[in-house]
Amino acid sequence: MELTVSELGERGVLARVIAQLGAASAAVVGPGDDCAVLRSAGDTVVTSDTMIEGPDFRAAWHSGFELGWKLAATNLSDVAAMGARPTGLTVSLAVPRDTPVRLLEEIAGGLDAACRELAPGCGVVGGDLGTAPVIVAAVTALGELAGRDPVTRSGASAGDTVAYAGQLGLAGLGLSLLFERAAEADGTAHDRTLDVLKAEFGAAIEAQLAPTPPIGLGVAAAEAGATAMMDVSDSLSIDAARLARASGVAVALSSDALVAGFGRQGGVEVPLAAMLTGGEDHGLLATFPPGAALPPGFVEIGRVEDGPADGAEFLVDGAPSEPRGWDPYEVRWPGE
Amino acid sequence: MELTVSELGERGVLARVIAQLGAASAAVVGPGDDCAVLRSAGDTVVTSDTMIEGPDFRAAWHSGFELGWKLAATNLSDVAAMGARPTGLTVSLAVPRDTPVRLLEEIAGGLDAACRELAPGCGVVGGDLGTAPVIVAAVTALGELAGRDPVTRSGASAGDTVAYAGQLGLAGLGLSLLFERAAEADGTAHDRTLDVLKAEFGAAIEAQLAPTPPIGLGVAAAEAGATAMMDVSDSLSIDAARLARASGVAVALSSDALVAGFGRQGGVEVPLAAMLTGGEDHGLLATFPPGAALPPGFVEIGRVEDGPADGAEFLVDGAPSEPRGWDPYEVRWPGE
Repeated sequence: MELTVSELGERGVLARVIAQLGAASAAVVGPGDDCAVLRSAGDTVVTSDTMIEGPDFRAAWHSGFELGWKLAATNLSDVAAMGARPTGLTVSLAVPRDTPVRLLEEIAGGLDAACRELAPGCGVVGGDLGTAPVIVAAVTALGELAGRDPVTRSGASAGDTVAYAGQLGLAGLGLSLLFERAAEADGTAHDRTLDVLKAEFGAAIEAQLAPTPPIGLGVAAAEAGATAMMDVSDSLSIDAARLARASGVAVALSSDALVAGFGRQGGVEVPLAAMLTGGEDHGLLATFPPGAALPPGFVEIGRVEDGPADGAEFLVDGAPSEPRGWDPYEVRWPGE
Repeated sequence: MELTVSELGERGVLARVIAQLGAASAAVVGPGDDCAVLRSAGDTVVTSDTMIEGPDFRAAWHSGFELGWKLAATNLSDVAAMGARPTGLTVSLAVPRDTPVRLLEEIAGGLDAACRELAPGCGVVGGDLGTAPVIVAAVTALGELAGRDPVTRSGASAGDTVAYAGQLGLAGLGLSLLFERAAEADGTAHDRTLDVLKAEFGAAIEAQLAPTPPIGLGVAAAEAGATAMMDVSDSLSIDAARLARASGVAVALSSDALVAGFGRQGGVEVPLAAMLTGGEDHGLLATFPPGAALPPGFVEIGRVEDGPADGAEFLVDGAPSEPRGWDPYEVRWPGE
């Protein structure tokens, strides 16, 4: 029998969790006081996102390390999308009382590793622990702009180049594969076929369970003059339409450019539909002034156009296209 | 039948929630982008806290407005406890799919009202929405130090005056009253006697459901030279022992001073035991150099002593006392 969080108690669990965490370079005061204190250059960007066992992830598929990694990566990508450098995370973890302490240590280890690899200098600076009927992980990420203006969703102009950096459609493909081949008929996740799936579709499964968004490219895009930027979490079509709406323009993508740039990723064939409607890759969708040199890592995928003329904010190959992807309230709980 | 969040969908719910929120004065970019952007003076303090239906609150007792108010107040008090001025909150709300949209609007209204009343200029700047089997609310609060050093838990020295500002024991008393008189024999909360309880013990019930910590006194304490400070969330005895341990000293309280200062609050008699072991008042426990003038609102309740000589970090009337209060992992869920 493994030691559970209720057997060890809050103080003991906290000590074990904190032992997994490296220091954030901007932290004047780290975990353990009422607040962490961060020294940062320029304005502070802040974003929050919660992952809940059930709608947002299934414990049977994610190791604790992967879950922690994904928590960090998905929030860091929002910081990057403003053109900012991540400085610190806070993490609130609520778990059932019989949860092994080891799982929380692994989650903390994954959070720390993702910070170190994706956003060196950033680290977990605070948070809290509690109980819940399922695993609830709420993360807030902070970043610094170092004197630059933030890159918002609303700055795109007609004529701008539309570009994307990161994986695209791979995470959504991974989720489809997991539901098709690592779940019971009623949708309940299991891990019996996980090894086989990983062997055959490693990049897609990995993109879903522990994505590696190009965090450093956020600052690079800002320095290259990006006019608008966002991270793609719900789907490229939904998020491109959001950027278009916020900017009062239309975003027109080229399927040829998408297929050429993202048709094969990590040895996995990615269909165009997955690129347009799959979510959770957390890559960066950005617009650049006409003729601007794109930072290495960005792939040109379309053009910003005047609009929306006939109400279409999002076009593929010149034709209006219906954005499709993820609505959290469409998720059903067992028994609902 | 009321409109539910799943009927309205994420975008519609978000618009309704955002309509409840006033702007934060430090917000360069408010809700609606990947991150909010805050302009702040000096170092940034950050704290996160999650409230989950069941262990942290019961929906039968709190109105949505009170719940939102409490969410803001409990996080603002952590910012105040560092000697900082609150600048912004992010809020992640996950609720069951059949939750009325109205409840989320009320929560947003309570968050906004608490910011306006307790920390003018602060406001909700971002967050996210999702689904969960119970109501899960994760809040992060940010604040600015305006060039001052943070006041941590670890700066108290022997000879310092121990002082407290805010309500004390009242919220814990309110919780006891609610469990005694507004719950079934098995502990399930009901609202049938809530009006009667509020009529008889208004201040205690209100302190539990929608506390009003003295947020502005955090900066006042820092400016008056506070050597250590924290907000009292778990209980005065537990948190005083934490401050003592962090500072390598002992905190010695006077029961006479406590009873004189806090024996009667808002027309409610508060026993010494409630002051020492009741949690959730979120008042400020601070230490000041010997002879320093306390900012109005702080009441002297004891002295910092060398220690811990015999292992006792916390003393009442000169005798070692066992800290008692709240451990989140001690909460049992139905069926556990």
